[in-house]
Amino acid sequence: MRVAIPVFDQLTALDAVGPYEVLSRLPDTEVVWVGQDHGPIRTDEGMGIVADATFAELTDPEVLVFPGGFGTRRLMRDDEVLDWVRQVHTTSRYTTSVCTGSLVLGAAGLLEGLAATTHWSVLPKLAELGAVPVTERVVEQGKIITAAGVSSGIDMALTLAAHLTDETTARAIQLQIEYDPQPPFDSGRATTVSADVLERAAELAER
Amino acid sequence: MRVAIPVFDQLTALDAVGPYEVLSRLPDTEVVWVGQDHGPIRTDEGMGIVADATFAELTDPEVLVFPGGFGTRRLMRDDEVLDWVRQVHTTSRYTTSVCTGSLVLGAAGLLEGLAATTHWSVLPKLAELGAVPVTERVVEQGKIITAAGVSSGIDMALTLAAHLTDETTARAIQLQIEYDPQPPFDSGRATTVSADVLERAAELAER
Repeated sequence: MRVAIPVFDQLTALDAVGPYEVLSRLPDTEVVWVGQDHGPIRTDEGMGIVADATFAELTDPEVLVFPGGFGTRRLMRDDEVLDWVRQVHTTSRYTTSVCTGSLVLGAAGLLEGLAATTHWSVLPKLAELGAVPVTERVVEQGKIITAAGVSSGIDMALTLAAHLTDETTARAIQLQIEYDPQPPFDSGRATTVSADVLERAAELAER
Repeated sequence: MRVAIPVFDQLTALDAVGPYEVLSRLPDTEVVWVGQDHGPIRTDEGMGIVADATFAELTDPEVLVFPGGFGTRRLMRDDEVLDWVRQVHTTSRYTTSVCTGSLVLGAAGLLEGLAATTHWSVLPKLAELGAVPVTERVVEQGKIITAAGVSSGIDMALTLAAHLTDETTARAIQLQIEYDPQPPFDSGRATTVSADVLERAAELAER
């Protein structure tokens, strides 16, 4: 089985690497990093990740995981990328996204009339793309699965791993990556954090 | 502030990218990917991550985050790497590790007599390196902080972010990465999973 993860400048690294760390451990599975060109892209904080195939070279992966990041704003108007997403979706077993990756699926017309989620800060944008925004961490609509912001891709990928194989295998991968989360703070949900945390998050985003 | 994350062949990607996604968002902070040479390394599942500096080029980062993976077995006998770790530790504000990265800190002699943790599957190895193995997710001993397996680096980095700045900033980063974990299964802890999950995890590790 092949899993395609698109990479592009201003990608958010964890959006991609959370699902990668889960799905690359599935038996007989190859995760392919796909980009507009071969070679490194730079994430929104400067990390270099290597694209090993071009969009033209891989059009029929069984699974698509579209990550987010500021770079998706550009991709939402990129016909090469949107055509590729539409083509992949015609034969994929699962078409999935993390964070603002769902805005690219939406721009490609895949989310019309479907419930979907994205990063909390841009949730209303999904409605502009014809989807029904939902404040859940992982939203399944048939073979389309969207996940909320950044770290939610880990939860999504474990759900997906169980669909692709079986629950025991998904649980074994959860154990391998020791995913027994113990955040030191309870501050991961926009609807329940304090005003000063929301304000600081906005300040950090403006750097 | 500069944060150094060493990269090497057979690194586990999420060990590095979890902390990266948190620490790269701190104000006035640069995360530098450090390797034996400039250019891409390949993680244990084949992902290409670019090293942007060599060990010789960055010897005084304020923070060290040493990730794990099978590649650490080789690094534990690599005098260039161990000397670098010792040198960095003399001036660092924090010397930290994720997963089997703590075995490299141990091999460098940094954990002598200290409580420390690592991936559950190799916890006893810490004792051979002079440390006191602890089954906790994040273990702080002065400026040395060790985290358990793979995904635990996210929890460690949020704790570290609060030390380096303040709790509001750490909470704001948690919100930005929407770290409100909702694993679909409760299977991330070796001491509580069922025997079939442990067996499947061992099978997957042997691929």
